[in-house]
Amino acid sequence: MKGCGIVAEYNPFHNGHRFHIEETRRAGATHIVAVMSGNFVQRAEPAVISKFDRARLAILGGADLVIELPVQYAVSSSERFARGAVALLEALGCVDEISFGSEAGNIASLRAAAKAVSDKDVIELTRQFYETGMSYPAARENVVEKLYGKDISEVLRTSNNILGVEYIKALDELKSKIEPITFRREGASHDSDESEGGFASARMLREEVRRGADIINYVPFETKLAMETAASEGKLSGGLDALSQAILFSLRTMSREELSELPDCGDGLGSRIYNAAAESGDMGEIFDIAKTKRYTMSRVRRAAIYALLGIDASYFFSPPYIRIMAIGRNAQELLNRIGKTHTLPMSVSLKELSKQGENAFKTAKLEAHATDIFNLSIYKPASRGRDYTVPVFKEDAAI
Amino acid sequence: MKGCGIVAEYNPFHNGHRFHIEETRRAGATHIVAVMSGNFVQRAEPAVISKFDRARLAILGGADLVIELPVQYAVSSSERFARGAVALLEALGCVDEISFGSEAGNIASLRAAAKAVSDKDVIELTRQFYETGMSYPAARENVVEKLYGKDISEVLRTSNNILGVEYIKALDELKSKIEPITFRREGASHDSDESEGGFASARMLREEVRRGADIINYVPFETKLAMETAASEGKLSGGLDALSQAILFSLRTMSREELSELPDCGDGLGSRIYNAAAESGDMGEIFDIAKTKRYTMSRVRRAAIYALLGIDASYFFSPPYIRIMAIGRNAQELLNRIGKTHTLPMSVSLKELSKQGENAFKTAKLEAHATDIFNLSIYKPASRGRDYTVPVFKEDAAI
Repeated sequence: MKGCGIVAEYNPFHNGHRFHIEETRRAGATHIVAVMSGNFVQRAEPAVISKFDRARLAILGGADLVIELPVQYAVSSSERFARGAVALLEALGCVDEISFGSEAGNIASLRAAAKAVSDKDVIELTRQFYETGMSYPAARENVVEKLYGKDISEVLRTSNNILGVEYIKALDELKSKIEPITFRREGASHDSDESEGGFASARMLREEVRRGADIINYVPFETKLAMETAASEGKLSGGLDALSQAILFSLRTMSREELSELPDCGDGLGSRIYNAAAESGDMGEIFDIAKTKRYTMSRVRRAAIYALLGIDASYFFSPPYIRIMAIGRNAQELLNRIGKTHTLPMSVSLKELSKQGENAFKTAKLEAHATDIFNLSIYKPASRGRDYTVPVFKEDAAI
Repeated sequence: MKGCGIVAEYNPFHNGHRFHIEETRRAGATHIVAVMSGNFVQRAEPAVISKFDRARLAILGGADLVIELPVQYAVSSSERFARGAVALLEALGCVDEISFGSEAGNIASLRAAAKAVSDKDVIELTRQFYETGMSYPAARENVVEKLYGKDISEVLRTSNNILGVEYIKALDELKSKIEPITFRREGASHDSDESEGGFASARMLREEVRRGADIINYVPFETKLAMETAASEGKLSGGLDALSQAILFSLRTMSREELSELPDCGDGLGSRIYNAAAESGDMGEIFDIAKTKRYTMSRVRRAAIYALLGIDASYFFSPPYIRIMAIGRNAQELLNRIGKTHTLPMSVSLKELSKQGENAFKTAKLEAHATDIFNLSIYKPASRGRDYTVPVFKEDAAI
């Protein structure tokens, strides 16, 4: 048995995702565990369809097991996102590899970049550059170029490489035996509007479905069906715009001090968002006003999600449990193995997990709350507490 | 000098309101002080235009001075609403009368009803009836009929009579020397859809303006102008519906316990609202689910506003200050007099008033917050903190 982890959002699951799973199997993996973001994703917005559906589609698309990346990591910076996901894979105790797409397409250059950004001098100089008004990623890239040369700094220019670098860093921190493997990303890039040879970006697919286009050329049939059913039943999320009043309400209810205490908002961003939200009552305008070269749009949006969901720094312990979201028909051997090796409480029941200590309680409560708020972003909002009631999808072995 | 107080919402100010002021003057009042609700009104919804505009229109329509009824009383039950308003009139120290419209049209029957509902036996029996599942108003009317007869219980059947009874009760409690006087309400009733001889209900006028109709037959020209300007500038409030996501967000963010601690929600209503908001993601549907014979729709809506604005029982001290909202051209003599007699801190500046003790700080902060949230209910939301920045309207004595 060779277990392989994939960190994913599957928002929604498309042919590129399936291809990545297939490649990973071709490279020798016998069992695939996806660590999947829940109802909010790293772009700082609600996912297009519910995590329960997305977990099911991941199984139908080829994964054997889906576990949930708790929401505080899912909506956080690449570094925290990667740390949370890698810690979960490590906690399974029997994952051999982590497989991810990257623009670089080779582990050596990502390792070199990971080494560079872990360098104490790079960290200190980045901080100094950042203080002059640059964004953190730009500052870091600059410093790496000066100290390690252009070849390595260029690795840090694209989003999938950056995530890959963070996975490697997180594995190093945990002294994990999990091996990183990477495939060159094929087709359209993450946020592109284009499609290429049967691959389309997830972003493009979300937009296509919202305007009623057929996406069958780019997704497995199950995804097409799930997305079209969701659209016709009023269950597609309207995205961040659909939560804009809740966000405005949160921003207007929080004080300058409270906003400054949000994660990554202590260096003036919280105060800037406070001022922007005082000046304007339009979410997009607030983001535009708050954004600077230093505070990127991603950071500003992420801060809004922290405010919306009430995520503060106290949530960034390491993951307190393993929550199983969906189980494939070939998962039994994997589950038997994990059953012996896992190092964190594990369950299909969030209720059960919420009883496993203080951090588990806090995380479960936040997760269920995020789902309740996510459910306000869909045309026909679902009921509250669904994290406690929706049964885990288990693929029928008989099909 | 004869000072007379009027408790009002002026949502918006119309011919009926002007007629009431004129009648009050004909009855001998030389100076009229309006105690006006701010940006939220007792129907448990945002007012149709901002309180700054409404205060100005009250002056242009014949009032000499407008002071603000703090939001916690303005959105509360008739009893608290009346108590807050009467306490403010009493605190001015030189108001001789309180004038209000009523269906009864005579003080004697309202006094009799006030005496009846203050009777300890009535209160105790009402509580017992209420426990059986009746609404509080229905239970009280029943008990009064049994103990005092139909003539008196019938007084308690209409909303303006009930308010009048509460004014009288509040005056009695304060042992106030202010004399209540009442006029029979002419024309359309408070919430009616009809108009009658140049009088239309405020509710009908709000709807007419929202659909672009001309309201000049029912309002002073200044009201027509203000409402039409607000409509064309996107400054009309969309009402409670326009805050529905913020309310849903509040209800889904609060726990069962927190909802049960809201004012008047401790007897099961908070828990009922929690369940309703868990079941549905539609505000109107939630209200329908939560409502029973016992918990009237008004109570349910009011609870939602308490949740939205964060008003709990700790806000129901007696009013901590007198906030002047607008000043008429003939107010000087009145202001000179009040300057010598007022018994609470008084100012045109909320900032100034917020420094007058703990309750004043709390009330001012809540008031400003309510305005910030009100401003999310209008098509083009205004900036935050307007309670601290909008100057008081002062009618030009030269005009």
